[in-house]
Amino acid sequence: MSGARRARASGPVQRSVEVDLGERSYPIQLGSGILAAAGGEIARHTKAHHAVVVTVPGVGRRYAPRLLRSLKEAGLRAHRVEVPDGDATKNLTQVKRLYDALLARGADRHSVVVALGGGMVGDLAGFAAASYLRGIPFVQVPTTVLAMVDASIGGKVGVNLPQGKNLVGAFHQPKLVWIDVETLRSLPSRQRAAGFAEVVKAGAILDLGFFEHLEGEGVAEALMDLDPEVLLPVLERACAIKADVVARDEREGGLRMLLNFGHTLAHAVETLTGYRKVLHGEAVAMGMVYAARRSEALGTTPAGTAQRLARLLQRFGLETELPPFARSAYLTALRVDKKKRDARIHFVILRGIGRAETLPLTLAEIAPAARRGGAKRRR
Amino acid sequence: MSGARRARASGPVQRSVEVDLGERSYPIQLGSGILAAAGGEIARHTKAHHAVVVTVPGVGRRYAPRLLRSLKEAGLRAHRVEVPDGDATKNLTQVKRLYDALLARGADRHSVVVALGGGMVGDLAGFAAASYLRGIPFVQVPTTVLAMVDASIGGKVGVNLPQGKNLVGAFHQPKLVWIDVETLRSLPSRQRAAGFAEVVKAGAILDLGFFEHLEGEGVAEALMDLDPEVLLPVLERACAIKADVVARDEREGGLRMLLNFGHTLAHAVETLTGYRKVLHGEAVAMGMVYAARRSEALGTTPAGTAQRLARLLQRFGLETELPPFARSAYLTALRVDKKKRDARIHFVILRGIGRAETLPLTLAEIAPAARRGGAKRRR
Repeated sequence: MSGARRARASGPVQRSVEVDLGERSYPIQLGSGILAAAGGEIARHTKAHHAVVVTVPGVGRRYAPRLLRSLKEAGLRAHRVEVPDGDATKNLTQVKRLYDALLARGADRHSVVVALGGGMVGDLAGFAAASYLRGIPFVQVPTTVLAMVDASIGGKVGVNLPQGKNLVGAFHQPKLVWIDVETLRSLPSRQRAAGFAEVVKAGAILDLGFFEHLEGEGVAEALMDLDPEVLLPVLERACAIKADVVARDEREGGLRMLLNFGHTLAHAVETLTGYRKVLHGEAVAMGMVYAARRSEALGTTPAGTAQRLARLLQRFGLETELPPFARSAYLTALRVDKKKRDARIHFVILRGIGRAETLPLTLAEIAPAARRGGAKRRR
Repeated sequence: MSGARRARASGPVQRSVEVDLGERSYPIQLGSGILAAAGGEIARHTKAHHAVVVTVPGVGRRYAPRLLRSLKEAGLRAHRVEVPDGDATKNLTQVKRLYDALLARGADRHSVVVALGGGMVGDLAGFAAASYLRGIPFVQVPTTVLAMVDASIGGKVGVNLPQGKNLVGAFHQPKLVWIDVETLRSLPSRQRAAGFAEVVKAGAILDLGFFEHLEGEGVAEALMDLDPEVLLPVLERACAIKADVVARDEREGGLRMLLNFGHTLAHAVETLTGYRKVLHGEAVAMGMVYAARRSEALGTTPAGTAQRLARLLQRFGLETELPPFARSAYLTALRVDKKKRDARIHFVILRGIGRAETLPLTLAEIAPAARRGGAKRRR
């Protein structure tokens, strides 16, 4: 790993990964039950004298009091601001509300925005932090598996427009990512599983050894049970893989595209299901198996790769087959996502487990073939 | 000058300054009658295949057709989007309208936003470019003196909130600044003069030789007449001074604060007059003379400095005395601007013409003293 390096953990922190971005470098610190120790580290990494914790009602009720107390004990003025839950409110109206809240609480360049919650909170609060006073410090305290290993790392923040998702945003790196796996206890198991799809992805695209570790007896089950002995090193490894990619390609020049493995079809599935019935990680699981199968058909990866990937994902309870929409529906959805009708896109394929690369393919080459036997056959 | 270097001008470009920011470096190119040659240079510096020209009605009517034609001749798809004129509409509503316009015209990461107009257009269009798809390329085509030598250089973009000015924004460097001094012909002379206040400022804070040049016989008058032989080298020098400061301090760590010479009181004057009766540059002229006079009183600069500065500014027809508001009104306005009641701020003072530095002063130390003889005396 060239970009990320394992940092020495100390105090309540049990694991640590450094995201190596020169003067924008920051640590990802992991532990079990470390939320109450966040304040001191946030103070140390931001030099802030004031914190605004942005969260959603459910997460806020459970965890904000502990975080606020810890910030105050560290000598910061601390406020809590709630935004409505759900990706539908990750929009400019909420950003405007956050600006108002920051102003009302006297936030200035010595204040830090702390995002407490899932990816939606991080994206929204992160964009407010990126643009308020042309950018103030920002810390991620993710409380979902998905946000811990993916959304909170790398500085991509932003909001949706009515016309599409994540159309407005910035690259704004956090000063610290603080992960307390205890906060996953309140996460429904379906959301846990969806998050682990991105953990599997990290192994599938870049790290065969890690993938094999996840395949080990009882590992998937221990992860779903949130056994910290198994969970912490796995999250650390997944964070390190993401951190390494980000360090080597901060603004999506090339390598970072590999993180889109499974995402082309996942976005199509999300579009076709109206972003309601399928969680993002669930769609990614389907999309990854599909991409692996396309890789087999293209002859870039040995037969059996897709099945091996599907078997691991299924141990988390994840569905691995695309919903049976017509090929024409998939084509339309792919076009909406890519906003270009005829161009080739960089589709992420496998050369084997742990070895992803991109291949320029047309949407027609990517879209699922018309199914023989109609929609019922697959169900 | 360490940061900016004089680049070799070629073709229709008569003068050129490089803003040296590593991989974010860009040229400022100046000439007389070069608007029709912009397209090729924009294409070369952005690699864009699509341009969205953002402008205001008056400027757009005069100059957009020539710019659009030149972009099309260079092989780009080109669209024009108008925003309402005036700083009051430099707000989030207009940014949202620009996002919609960019989406409607199919703008993607290979599109460039071209700001054609004064500082307000550059700030607004620049912030849209900074945040649309997490940032797309951006070019400044300033059409006011103020925007040419100040606002278009340095990457500070953003909008106002109802609570205050420039509270939301980003640092987003343009790929090119394209200055055609012919576009100043349509600028009212009062706005020309206000722009030259910032030119005088560049000399006053960092370049005695340049200040002396501006004091030369007939120079101020030739500038007001837009004589290109006099105007081009002066704008080039003013741009180079700003570029040098930006290159050495991109994100306002220290040196860049010197550019705020005269601005503390200028903002107070703008607040007290409701941003209506006084142009920004006019307020800066008053603020600079006031700051020079404070410097004399503090003993940091020789007696006569303020008068020398005032004399030069008056040759542009600029008022150099602060409006006669009460000391308490100034104190209130200063507090609104700084959002901190008791802290010291870095007030820019002179050690002599061409030698500015900052001094930590309280607002009480900065605010004008109670005037003997009441408000009428000064008028």
